[in-house]
Amino acid sequence: MTPTITAFETSPDRGQGLARDMRVRWSLEEVRQPYEVRLVSFAAMKEPAHLARHPFGQIPTYEEGELVLFESGAIVLHIAQRHAGLLPDDANARARAVAWMFAAVNTIEPPILDLQNAKFQEGDKPWAAERMPLVLDRIRQRAGQLSERLDDADWLDGAFSAGDLMMIGVLRRLRPSGLLDEYPNLAAYVARGEARPAFKRAFDAQLAVFTSRQPAAG
Amino acid sequence: MTPTITAFETSPDRGQGLARDMRVRWSLEEVRQPYEVRLVSFAAMKEPAHLARHPFGQIPTYEEGELVLFESGAIVLHIAQRHAGLLPDDANARARAVAWMFAAVNTIEPPILDLQNAKFQEGDKPWAAERMPLVLDRIRQRAGQLSERLDDADWLDGAFSAGDLMMIGVLRRLRPSGLLDEYPNLAAYVARGEARPAFKRAFDAQLAVFTSRQPAAG
Repeated sequence: MTPTITAFETSPDRGQGLARDMRVRWSLEEVRQPYEVRLVSFAAMKEPAHLARHPFGQIPTYEEGELVLFESGAIVLHIAQRHAGLLPDDANARARAVAWMFAAVNTIEPPILDLQNAKFQEGDKPWAAERMPLVLDRIRQRAGQLSERLDDADWLDGAFSAGDLMMIGVLRRLRPSGLLDEYPNLAAYVARGEARPAFKRAFDAQLAVFTSRQPAAG
Repeated sequence: MTPTITAFETSPDRGQGLARDMRVRWSLEEVRQPYEVRLVSFAAMKEPAHLARHPFGQIPTYEEGELVLFESGAIVLHIAQRHAGLLPDDANARARAVAWMFAAVNTIEPPILDLQNAKFQEGDKPWAAERMPLVLDRIRQRAGQLSERLDDADWLDGAFSAGDLMMIGVLRRLRPSGLLDEYPNLAAYVARGEARPAFKRAFDAQLAVFTSRQPAAG
Protein backbone atom coordinates (compact mmCIF):
# COMPACT_ATOMS: atom_id res chain seq x y z
CA MET A 1 0.00 0.00 0.00
CA THR A 2 1.49 3.33 -1.03
CA PRO A 3 1.39 5.85 1.82
CA THR A 4 0.46 9.49 1.26
CA ILE A 5 2.19 12.30 3.10
CA THR A 6 1.38 16.00 3.20
CA ALA A 7 3.82 18.84 2.56
CA PHE A 8 3.64 22.61 2.12
CA GLU A 9 2.25 23.72 -1.22
CA THR A 10 4.49 26.79 -0.97
CA SER A 11 7.90 26.16 0.60
CA PRO A 12 8.60 28.80 3.27
CA ASP A 13 12.34 28.08 3.06
CA ARG A 14 12.52 28.33 -0.75
CA GLY A 15 13.44 24.69 -1.27
CA GLN A 16 16.07 24.26 1.46
CA GLY A 17 14.18 21.22 2.77
CA LEU A 18 13.96 22.46 6.37
CA ALA A 19 10.28 21.63 6.84
CA ARG A 20 9.40 18.47 8.70
CA ASP A 21 8.14 16.56 5.65
CA MET A 22 11.83 16.23 4.68
CA ARG A 23 12.44 13.81 7.60
CA VAL A 24 9.58 11.61 6.45
CA ARG A 25 10.60 11.73 2.77
CA TRP A 26 14.17 10.83 3.76
CA SER A 27 13.11 7.85 5.87
CA LEU A 28 10.82 6.56 3.10
CA GLU A 29 13.72 6.85 0.65
CA GLU A 30 16.08 5.02 3.05
CA VAL A 31 13.73 2.03 3.15
CA ARG A 32 12.83 2.34 -0.57
CA GLN A 33 9.13 2.79 0.08
CA PRO A 34 7.43 4.78 -2.70
CA TYR A 35 4.99 7.43 -1.50
CA GLU A 36 2.54 10.01 -2.74
CA VAL A 37 2.48 13.63 -1.69
CA ARG A 38 -0.56 15.82 -1.20
CA LEU A 39 0.40 19.48 -1.10
CA VAL A 40 -1.56 21.72 1.26
CA SER A 41 -1.81 25.51 1.38
CA PHE A 42 -1.44 27.42 4.64
CA ALA A 43 -5.19 28.12 4.50
CA ALA A 44 -6.11 24.46 3.93
CA MET A 45 -3.96 23.40 6.89
CA LYS A 46 -6.34 25.22 9.22
CA GLU A 47 -9.50 23.66 7.73
CA PRO A 48 -11.43 20.79 9.36
CA ALA A 49 -10.36 18.18 6.77
CA HIS A 50 -6.69 18.72 7.57
CA LEU A 51 -7.25 19.25 11.30
CA ALA A 52 -8.88 15.80 11.38
CA ARG A 53 -5.55 14.41 10.22
CA HIS A 54 -3.35 16.79 12.19
CA PRO A 55 -4.85 18.37 15.33
CA PHE A 56 -2.25 21.16 15.30
CA GLY A 57 -2.77 22.12 11.65
CA GLN A 58 0.76 21.37 10.52
CA ILE A 59 2.59 19.11 8.10
CA PRO A 60 3.58 16.34 7.64
CA THR A 61 0.82 13.81 8.01
CA TYR A 62 1.02 10.18 6.94
CA GLU A 63 -1.87 8.09 5.61
CA GLU A 64 -1.61 4.38 4.93
CA GLY A 65 -4.94 2.57 4.58
CA GLU A 66 -6.85 3.14 7.81
CA LEU A 67 -3.85 4.61 9.60
CA VAL A 68 -3.52 8.38 9.89
CA LEU A 69 -0.47 9.73 11.73
CA PHE A 70 1.00 13.12 12.55
CA GLU A 71 4.30 14.23 14.19
CA SER A 72 7.40 13.62 12.12
CA GLY A 73 9.09 11.64 14.91
CA ALA A 74 6.15 9.25 15.20
CA ILE A 75 5.92 8.82 11.43
CA VAL A 76 9.64 8.12 11.07
CA LEU A 77 9.48 5.63 13.95
CA HIS A 78 6.48 3.90 12.33
CA ILE A 79 8.37 3.61 9.05
CA ALA A 80 11.51 2.40 10.84
CA GLN A 81 9.55 -0.27 12.70
CA ARG A 82 7.82 -1.56 9.57
CA HIS A 83 10.88 -1.73 7.30
CA ALA A 84 14.49 -2.85 7.69
CA GLY A 85 17.32 -0.35 7.57
CA LEU A 86 16.57 2.40 10.07
CA LEU A 87 16.78 0.62 13.43
CA PRO A 88 19.32 -1.92 14.72
CA ASP A 89 18.20 -5.51 15.31
CA ASP A 90 19.56 -5.66 18.86
CA ALA A 91 16.80 -4.65 21.30
CA ASN A 92 19.01 -2.42 23.47
CA ALA A 93 20.56 -0.67 20.47
CA ARG A 94 17.05 -0.13 19.11
CA ALA A 95 15.95 1.53 22.35
CA ARG A 96 19.03 3.79 22.24
CA ALA A 97 18.28 4.81 18.64
CA VAL A 98 14.77 5.78 19.75
CA ALA A 99 16.34 7.80 22.59
CA TRP A 100 18.25 9.83 19.99
CA MET A 101 15.00 10.42 18.09
CA PHE A 102 13.44 11.87 21.24
CA ALA A 103 16.60 13.85 22.02
CA ALA A 104 16.41 15.41 18.56
CA VAL A 105 12.85 16.67 19.01
CA ASN A 106 12.75 17.33 22.77
CA THR A 107 16.29 18.51 23.66
CA ILE A 108 17.87 19.89 20.48
CA GLU A 109 14.88 21.21 18.56
CA PRO A 110 13.17 23.39 21.24
CA PRO A 111 15.98 26.00 21.45
CA ILE A 112 16.16 25.98 17.63
CA LEU A 113 12.41 26.64 17.43
CA ASP A 114 12.98 29.51 19.86
CA LEU A 115 15.55 30.97 17.46
CA GLN A 116 13.03 30.77 14.63
CA ASN A 117 10.44 32.54 16.80
CA ALA A 118 13.04 35.16 17.78
CA LYS A 119 13.76 35.83 14.09
CA PHE A 120 10.39 35.56 12.44
CA GLN A 121 7.89 36.48 15.16
CA GLU A 122 9.98 38.78 17.37
CA GLY A 123 12.53 40.16 14.91
CA ASP A 124 10.91 43.60 14.94
CA LYS A 125 10.43 43.79 18.71
CA PRO A 126 12.47 46.28 20.76
CA TRP A 127 14.23 43.43 22.60
CA ALA A 128 15.20 41.47 19.49
CA ALA A 129 18.90 42.40 19.33
CA GLU A 130 19.59 42.33 23.05
CA ARG A 131 17.85 39.00 23.59
CA MET A 132 19.41 37.16 20.65
CA PRO A 133 22.68 36.18 22.42
CA LEU A 134 20.64 34.38 25.12
CA VAL A 135 18.72 32.46 22.45
CA LEU A 136 21.91 31.47 20.65
CA ASP A 137 23.65 30.46 23.89
CA ARG A 138 20.85 28.07 24.74
CA ILE A 139 21.40 26.37 21.39
CA ARG A 140 25.18 26.38 21.93
CA GLN A 141 24.79 24.64 25.28
CA ARG A 142 23.01 21.70 23.65
CA ALA A 143 25.04 21.70 20.45
CA GLY A 144 28.26 21.67 22.49
CA GLN A 145 27.08 18.67 24.51
CA LEU A 146 26.03 16.86 21.35
CA SER A 147 29.38 17.64 19.74
CA GLU A 148 31.20 16.18 22.77
CA ARG A 149 29.16 13.01 22.65
CA LEU A 150 29.52 12.51 18.90
CA ASP A 151 33.27 13.16 19.12
CA ASP A 152 34.84 11.77 15.95
CA ALA A 153 32.27 9.05 15.30
CA ASP A 154 30.36 8.90 12.03
CA TRP A 155 26.97 8.42 13.68
CA LEU A 156 25.57 8.81 17.19
CA ASP A 157 25.49 5.13 18.17
CA GLY A 158 27.01 2.59 15.79
CA ALA A 159 25.45 2.39 12.33
CA PHE A 160 23.25 5.10 10.81
CA SER A 161 19.76 4.93 12.31
CA ALA A 162 16.48 6.78 12.56
CA GLY A 163 18.10 8.59 15.51
CA ASP A 164 20.69 10.12 13.18
CA LEU A 165 18.05 10.88 10.57
CA MET A 166 15.97 12.85 13.06
CA MET A 167 18.99 14.56 14.63
CA ILE A 168 20.40 15.64 11.27
CA GLY A 169 16.94 16.77 10.18
CA VAL A 170 16.79 19.01 13.27
CA LEU A 171 20.40 20.27 13.03
CA ARG A 172 19.91 21.31 9.40
CA ARG A 173 17.57 24.00 10.72
CA LEU A 174 20.63 25.66 12.27
CA ARG A 175 22.44 26.12 8.99
CA PRO A 176 20.91 29.49 8.02
CA SER A 177 22.20 30.92 11.34
CA GLY A 178 25.80 29.88 10.70
CA LEU A 179 25.87 28.36 14.19
CA LEU A 180 26.32 24.81 12.95
CA ASP A 181 29.76 25.72 11.58
CA GLU A 182 30.95 26.52 15.12
CA TYR A 183 31.01 22.73 15.66
CA PRO A 184 33.07 21.18 12.86
CA ASN A 185 32.23 17.61 13.85
CA LEU A 186 28.51 18.41 13.85
CA ALA A 187 28.78 20.15 10.49
CA ALA A 188 30.59 17.09 9.10
CA TYR A 189 27.95 14.83 10.65
CA VAL A 190 25.16 16.75 8.93
CA ALA A 191 27.10 16.70 5.65
CA ARG A 192 27.51 12.91 6.02
CA GLY A 193 23.77 12.55 6.28
CA GLU A 194 23.17 14.83 3.33
CA ALA A 195 25.57 12.77 1.22
CA ARG A 196 23.41 9.67 1.55
CA PRO A 197 21.65 8.80 -1.72
CA ALA A 198 18.30 8.53 0.07
CA PHE A 199 18.72 12.05 1.46
CA LYS A 200 19.50 13.37 -2.00
CA ARG A 201 16.44 11.76 -3.54
CA ALA A 202 14.24 13.18 -0.78
CA PHE A 203 15.84 16.60 -1.10
CA ASP A 204 15.35 16.68 -4.86
CA ALA A 205 11.71 15.66 -4.48
CA GLN A 206 10.91 18.53 -2.11
CA LEU A 207 12.96 20.96 -4.20
CA ALA A 208 10.95 19.99 -7.28
CA VAL A 209 7.78 21.17 -5.51
CA PHE A 210 9.37 24.58 -5.04
CA THR A 211 10.94 24.99 -8.49
CA SER A 212 7.85 23.75 -10.34
CA ARG A 213 5.85 26.52 -8.69
CA GLN A 214 8.27 29.35 -9.37
CA PRO A 215 7.59 31.58 -12.36
CA ALA A 216 10.26 31.08 -15.05
CA ALA A 217 13.07 33.64 -14.88
CA GLY A 218 13.23 36.04 -17.76
CA MET B 1 15.79 -7.21 36.69
CA THR B 2 15.00 -4.08 38.69
CA PRO B 3 15.72 -0.91 36.70
CA THR B 4 17.38 2.12 38.25
CA ILE B 5 16.34 5.64 37.37
CA THR B 6 17.92 8.95 38.32
CA ALA B 7 16.12 11.93 39.83
CA PHE B 8 17.06 15.29 41.32
CA GLU B 9 18.56 15.08 44.80
CA THR B 10 17.02 18.49 45.50
CA SER B 11 13.61 19.06 43.94
CA PRO B 12 13.56 22.45 42.17
CA ASP B 13 9.75 22.51 42.31
CA ARG B 14 9.52 21.66 46.03
CA GLY B 15 7.84 18.32 45.46
CA GLN B 16 5.26 19.27 42.83
CA GLY B 17 6.49 16.41 40.65
CA LEU B 18 7.07 18.56 37.56
CA ALA B 19 10.52 17.15 36.74
CA ARG B 20 10.76 14.54 34.02
CA ASP B 21 11.49 11.61 36.36
CA MET B 22 7.80 11.81 37.30
CA ARG B 23 6.79 10.52 33.83
CA VAL B 24 9.07 7.53 34.20
CA ARG B 25 7.99 6.80 37.78
CA TRP B 26 4.35 7.00 36.69
CA SER B 27 4.82 4.60 33.77
CA LEU B 28 6.68 2.11 35.99
CA GLU B 29 3.84 2.28 38.51
CA GLU B 30 1.22 1.77 35.76
CA VAL B 31 2.89 -1.49 34.74
CA ARG B 32 3.71 -2.45 38.36
CA GLN B 33 7.45 -2.65 37.73
CA PRO B 34 9.46 -1.95 40.93
CA TYR B 35 12.43 0.36 40.45
CA GLU B 36 15.33 1.89 42.30
CA VAL B 37 16.19 5.58 42.35
CA ARG B 38 19.64 7.11 42.40
CA LEU B 39 19.48 10.76 43.42
CA VAL B 40 21.94 13.12 41.74
CA SER B 41 22.98 16.62 42.71
CA PHE B 42 23.15 19.45 40.16
CA ALA B 43 26.95 19.26 40.38
CA ALA B 44 27.06 15.50 39.84
CA MET B 45 24.82 15.82 36.76
CA LYS B 46 27.62 17.67 34.98
CA GLU B 47 30.31 15.13 35.85
CA PRO B 48 31.64 12.50 33.41
CA ALA B 49 29.98 9.56 35.17
CA HIS B 50 26.52 11.05 34.67
CA LEU B 51 27.28 12.52 31.23
CA ALA B 52 28.17 8.99 30.11
CA ARG B 53 24.57 8.04 30.91
CA HIS B 54 22.98 11.30 29.78
CA PRO B 55 24.88 13.37 27.19
CA PHE B 56 22.92 16.51 28.11
CA GLY B 57 23.52 16.26 31.86
CA GLN B 58 19.88 15.95 32.85
CA ILE B 59 17.54 13.54 34.57
CA PRO B 60 15.97 11.02 34.24
CA THR B 61 18.16 8.18 33.06
CA TYR B 62 17.17 4.52 33.04
CA GLU B 63 19.50 1.58 33.62
CA GLU B 64 18.44 -2.04 33.21
CA GLY B 65 21.31 -4.51 32.93
CA GLU B 66 23.39 -3.45 29.93
CA LEU B 67 20.82 -0.93 28.73
CA VAL B 68 21.31 2.74 29.55
CA LEU B 69 18.68 5.17 28.28
CA PHE B 70 17.97 8.89 28.53
CA GLU B 71 15.04 11.10 27.38
CA SER B 72 11.81 10.57 29.28
CA GLY B 73 9.83 9.89 26.08
CA ALA B 74 12.21 7.12 25.03
CA ILE B 75 12.22 5.59 28.50
CA VAL B 76 8.42 5.61 28.77
CA LEU B 77 8.15 4.07 25.29
CA HIS B 78 10.67 1.38 26.24
CA ILE B 79 8.64 0.53 29.37
CA ALA B 80 5.39 0.60 27.39
CA GLN B 81 6.79 -1.79 24.78
CA ARG B 82 8.12 -4.25 27.36
CA HIS B 83 5.02 -4.41 29.56
CA ALA B 84 1.27 -4.58 28.99
CA GLY B 85 -0.97 -1.68 29.91
CA LEU B 86 0.42 1.45 28.28
CA LEU B 87 -0.05 0.80 24.56
CA PRO B 88 -3.03 -0.66 22.68
CA ASP B 89 -2.68 -4.10 21.05
CA ASP B 90 -3.91 -2.92 17.64
CA ALA B 91 -0.93 -1.84 15.52
CA ASN B 92 -2.56 1.32 14.16
CA ALA B 93 -3.80 2.42 17.57
CA ARG B 94 -0.29 1.80 18.93
CA ALA B 95 1.23 4.05 16.27
CA ARG B 96 -1.30 6.76 17.12
CA ALA B 97 -0.47 6.52 20.84
CA VAL B 98 3.20 7.02 19.94
CA ALA B 99 2.20 10.05 17.86
CA TRP B 100 0.66 11.61 20.97
CA MET B 101 3.89 10.92 22.87
CA PHE B 102 5.84 12.85 20.25
CA ALA B 103 3.18 15.59 20.15
CA ALA B 104 3.59 16.00 23.92
CA VAL B 105 7.35 16.58 23.73
CA ASN B 106 7.69 18.26 20.33
CA THR B 107 4.51 20.34 19.93
CA ILE B 108 3.15 21.05 23.42
CA GLU B 109 6.31 21.10 25.54
CA PRO B 110 8.52 23.57 23.57
CA PRO B 111 6.33 26.64 24.20
CA ILE B 112 6.02 25.56 27.85
CA LEU B 113 9.82 25.33 28.12
CA ASP B 114 9.95 28.82 26.64
CA LEU B 115 7.66 30.03 29.44
CA GLN B 116 10.00 28.50 32.01
CA ASN B 117 12.96 30.24 30.36
CA ALA B 118 11.01 33.52 30.27
CA LYS B 119 10.34 33.24 34.00
CA PHE B 120 13.54 31.80 35.38
CA GLN B 121 16.25 32.92 32.96
CA GLU B 122 14.76 36.14 31.61
CA GLY B 123 12.48 37.25 34.43
CA ASP B 124 14.79 40.12 35.35
CA LYS B 125 15.39 41.30 31.78
CA PRO B 126 14.00 44.64 30.61
CA TRP B 127 11.73 42.89 28.07
CA ALA B 128 10.27 40.36 30.51
CA ALA B 129 6.86 41.96 31.06
CA GLU B 130 6.28 43.11 27.49
CA ARG B 131 7.30 39.78 25.96
CA MET B 132 5.29 37.53 28.31
CA PRO B 133 1.94 37.84 26.43
CA LEU B 134 3.65 36.50 23.27
CA VAL B 135 5.03 33.54 25.19
CA LEU B 136 1.65 32.77 26.74
CA ASP B 137 -0.15 33.12 23.41
CA ARG B 138 2.11 30.53 21.81
CA ILE B 139 1.09 28.11 24.54
CA ARG B 140 -2.57 29.06 24.15
CA GLN B 141 -2.45 28.33 20.43
CA ARG B 142 -1.38 24.73 21.08
CA ALA B 143 -3.47 24.24 24.21
CA GLY B 144 -6.54 25.48 22.33
CA GLN B 145 -5.98 23.00 19.51
CA LEU B 146 -5.42 20.19 21.98
CA SER B 147 -8.58 21.17 23.86
CA GLU B 148 -10.57 21.05 20.58
CA ARG B 149 -9.24 17.62 19.72
CA LEU B 150 -9.82 16.15 23.18
CA ASP B 151 -13.32 17.62 23.27
CA ASP B 152 -15.27 15.74 25.94
CA ALA B 153 -13.34 12.47 25.70
CA ASP B 154 -11.62 10.99 28.73
CA TRP B 155 -8.35 10.30 26.90
CA LEU B 156 -6.80 11.37 23.60
CA ASP B 157 -7.45 8.20 21.59
CA GLY B 158 -9.54 5.45 23.19
CA ALA B 159 -8.17 3.95 26.39
CA PHE B 160 -5.50 5.59 28.57
CA SER B 161 -2.08 5.13 26.98
CA ALA B 162 1.53 6.24 27.16
CA GLY B 163 0.42 9.13 24.91
CA ASP B 164 -1.87 10.42 27.66
CA LEU B 165 0.78 9.80 30.31
CA MET B 166 3.31 11.94 28.42
CA MET B 167 0.76 14.63 27.52
CA ILE B 168 -0.49 14.95 31.09
CA GLY B 169 3.11 14.97 32.33
CA VAL B 170 3.81 17.93 30.04
CA LEU B 171 0.54 19.78 30.75
CA ARG B 172 1.14 19.60 34.49
CA ARG B 173 4.02 22.00 33.94
CA LEU B 174 1.43 24.64 33.04
CA ARG B 175 -0.36 24.50 36.35
CA PRO B 176 1.82 27.06 38.20
CA SER B 177 0.98 29.62 35.46
CA GLY B 178 -2.79 29.23 35.90
CA LEU B 179 -3.08 28.82 32.14
CA LEU B 180 -4.30 25.24 32.32
CA ASP B 181 -7.51 26.43 34.00
CA GLU B 182 -8.39 28.45 30.88
CA TYR B 183 -9.24 25.08 29.27
CA PRO B 184 -11.67 23.26 31.57
CA ASN B 185 -11.55 20.03 29.56
CA LEU B 186 -7.73 19.98 29.68
CA ALA B 187 -7.75 20.72 33.41
CA ALA B 188 -10.21 17.83 33.90
CA TYR B 189 -8.05 15.61 31.68
CA VAL B 190 -4.98 16.31 33.80
CA ALA B 191 -6.99 15.73 36.98
CA ARG B 192 -8.18 12.40 35.54
CA GLY B 193 -4.56 11.36 35.06
CA GLU B 194 -3.61 12.51 38.53
CA ALA B 195 -6.46 10.47 40.03
CA ARG B 196 -5.00 7.21 38.75
CA PRO B 197 -3.57 5.09 41.59
CA ALA B 198 -0.30 4.66 39.68
CA PHE B 199 0.10 8.43 39.39
CA LYS B 200 -0.51 8.83 43.11
CA ARG B 201 2.09 6.22 44.01
CA ALA B 202 4.63 7.89 41.71
CA PHE B 203 3.78 11.33 43.06
CA ASP B 204 4.15 10.22 46.66
CA ALA B 205 7.52 8.61 45.88
CA GLN B 206 8.97 11.80 44.40
CA LEU B 207 7.42 13.89 47.18
CA ALA B 208 9.08 11.68 49.79
CA VAL B 209 12.49 12.61 48.33
CA PHE B 210 11.67 16.26 48.91
CA THR B 211 10.13 15.97 52.38
CA SER B 212 12.84 13.63 53.70
CA ARG B 213 15.42 16.29 52.85
CA GLN B 214 13.60 19.21 54.42
CA PRO B 215 14.62 20.25 57.92
CA ALA B 216 11.85 19.52 60.40
CA ALA B 217 9.60 22.49 61.07
CA GLY B 218 10.26 23.90 64.48
